[in-house]
Amino acid sequence: MSPFFSSRWVPCPDHVTELDGEGLPAGFRAAGVAAGIKASGDPDVGVMVCDAPDATSAARFTASGTQAPPVLLCRERARLDAVRAVVVNSGNANAATGRPGFENAAKMQGAGALVAGVSEDQVAVCSTGVIGVPLPMEKITHGIVAASHALAPDGDAAFSAAIQTTDAFEKRARLQVELPSGTVAITGQAKGAGMIQPGFATLLVFAQTDARLSAETADLLLGVCVKRSFERVSVDGQLSTNDTVILQCSGASGVAVQPETEDELRFGEALDALMRQLALRVVHDGEGARRVGRVVVRGGEPGAVSEVARAVANSPLVKTALYGGDPNWGRIIQAVGAAMPGTAPLPVDIAIEGVQVCARGGVVPHDAAALAEAVARDEVEYEIGLPGDGAETEVFFSDLGHEYVTINADYTT
Amino acid sequence: MSPFFSSRWVPCPDHVTELDGEGLPAGFRAAGVAAGIKASGDPDVGVMVCDAPDATSAARFTASGTQAPPVLLCRERARLDAVRAVVVNSGNANAATGRPGFENAAKMQGAGALVAGVSEDQVAVCSTGVIGVPLPMEKITHGIVAASHALAPDGDAAFSAAIQTTDAFEKRARLQVELPSGTVAITGQAKGAGMIQPGFATLLVFAQTDARLSAETADLLLGVCVKRSFERVSVDGQLSTNDTVILQCSGASGVAVQPETEDELRFGEALDALMRQLALRVVHDGEGARRVGRVVVRGGEPGAVSEVARAVANSPLVKTALYGGDPNWGRIIQAVGAAMPGTAPLPVDIAIEGVQVCARGGVVPHDAAALAEAVARDEVEYEIGLPGDGAETEVFFSDLGHEYVTINADYTT
Repeated sequence: MSPFFSSRWVPCPDHVTELDGEGLPAGFRAAGVAAGIKASGDPDVGVMVCDAPDATSAARFTASGTQAPPVLLCRERARLDAVRAVVVNSGNANAATGRPGFENAAKMQGAGALVAGVSEDQVAVCSTGVIGVPLPMEKITHGIVAASHALAPDGDAAFSAAIQTTDAFEKRARLQVELPSGTVAITGQAKGAGMIQPGFATLLVFAQTDARLSAETADLLLGVCVKRSFERVSVDGQLSTNDTVILQCSGASGVAVQPETEDELRFGEALDALMRQLALRVVHDGEGARRVGRVVVRGGEPGAVSEVARAVANSPLVKTALYGGDPNWGRIIQAVGAAMPGTAPLPVDIAIEGVQVCARGGVVPHDAAALAEAVARDEVEYEIGLPGDGAETEVFFSDLGHEYVTINADYTT
Repeated sequence: MSPFFSSRWVPCPDHVTELDGEGLPAGFRAAGVAAGIKASGDPDVGVMVCDAPDATSAARFTASGTQAPPVLLCRERARLDAVRAVVVNSGNANAATGRPGFENAAKMQGAGALVAGVSEDQVAVCSTGVIGVPLPMEKITHGIVAASHALAPDGDAAFSAAIQTTDAFEKRARLQVELPSGTVAITGQAKGAGMIQPGFATLLVFAQTDARLSAETADLLLGVCVKRSFERVSVDGQLSTNDTVILQCSGASGVAVQPETEDELRFGEALDALMRQLALRVVHDGEGARRVGRVVVRGGEPGAVSEVARAVANSPLVKTALYGGDPNWGRIIQAVGAAMPGTAPLPVDIAIEGVQVCARGGVVPHDAAALAEAVARDEVEYEIGLPGDGAETEVFFSDLGHEYVTINADYTT
């Protein structure tokens, strides 16, 4: 596993230590198996079980109007504050499958309950992969049973492998967190490379901790961290039908994280760093991505800074320029103007990697060679100033290159 | 010139005849020359002059908040209902150039007035090309003078060539229109292949007619036609800083088009067909485009059908699937759901080239082979049904392929 905190944009907090290898926090077992859903024969069914009867949890889901049956099932039939087991398949999203799809999601939930020895409403179900194809239920059921026999405290890598689709590399981390009340562990696994601009959640992201959190605290912390991580990234501006984030807390460390304590603050910082770096890894793995951009927008209006940041991050012209290492900042000002119709002439400032190229809407003399060199690096930062101050936001985004086209022009066939 | 009305989506009206070759309506002269703005040595300065002192006109411009100086100049300092001359350069957009850019646009207007022998406020100025680079004014002024010497009644092809940038083919038409009151001509020239999702106008589009229209009638007809053409297309969802559409009417045919007459109806139909086919040609020339899609959305809410149509047309997943000839309709339902957050489960219907693939949100059995064959043709139609009825819209869009990436990854360098 390469170093997890690899971006200059997400420093590892002082009280957090990154661990190598495999191993879940106390109270968790996981597994991933190949059930034959993917034609490639790669792992495609994962199970994550928390053995603590009083486990707490929190979850977030896509805001899509066409939520997939597994998402609808989780929302309608799972106790999201007490999830004990998570059952996931990749290779098929069980989306746009109607009532039969909902029934298949229910069957997955039932099989998960059976193998985990918990009630059905304590099982969350996730699917990811192709849309509009009925789930091969026999394979899935066999996969869930096979995974249950393979459940192990160090099954996080296998689980992580089983949830991937077009991912080029794994997004997994193991963190040791020093809290005033004691040491706890947090692990996380994410999948995702395309159809990524989460609304209220994203992709599939699973996090586990042996800290003891009330369901309310878990929900509060997860909500804040998701807003600062997965809701601030975009690969292609596309909101998935299946995005799901689940945090499970076993409490097996005996370390309790109480509200409004230094424990909560530090635990939150660790979870935040985990989520932000997982989100960045997703962006770095944006289908075929070569470079990652961060756009920071400051101004007087929260709505405007958010619109402008999204417009820049999702502009195919900005993204292809990032891919090409092209310092074409005219596309940035184009995207800014498009996001704020009717405001011309808008006095916008633009800096790229600290080089100011535009002031109050007009070009300023700058070192073109230095700029060209700066935009050819792995991570490129764009700063945009709008009139006023007090509002600020950021979006991390991947470039748009030939590999994205190759991957997506021929996905089902 | 290949046949202009080449799309099944834009039939040529019965009273309209497409003409070959070159030639403007009576009362117009045009020219295009190479002034050295483009490194390629291709033509880059165009001038269009209407010799009728009582010419009328109408115009539309981009809604961008970062409108380029030539757009700001036209809005502030041109009599848009009486434009006699249009001066255009390609190779440099004179955008994000601040106050000096505005002064350069004013110099272009002054030079245009001089060579056309009209007042400055009767000259419209347009620029297209790279953003954020000062205009090479000496070359432009020389170009305008050289073009003035080359002005000719059959200069429309040269003018059309001079306004192009990344265009792969010309977008130009000559129509003869039979009205109850007599025969008139309409010609049109458009440029554009990227940064295209017009807001209130698009790209550079110029149309000329020898019919006599009041400025009010010209404005009314242009407004309606732009809404049905350039506002309904998207290459890459990007609103340009420079989009401009100008209609000029010389009246030299002696045929008057009066409000609320059969003349107006027929003239409007001809202008509509011209604009729609020009818009479609722009989409077909979408940077590197292989295929063009048309998405039609029907439902009960005008806002929702419009959001959904844009979301589908601008989805990089839908566009790469179109490029790949991939019948991956899951991406359509993803885009629909993303455009209507919080409405799950949404009972959406989807048909592709008449093959229904999704009913009330769930997959329906369909002939996969027939579907695969249908999506491999040049034009692909998607129909989406949302709850309710009474609202309907359409968007024409190009695919997203390797050529788009190649063209845009390395545009300035």
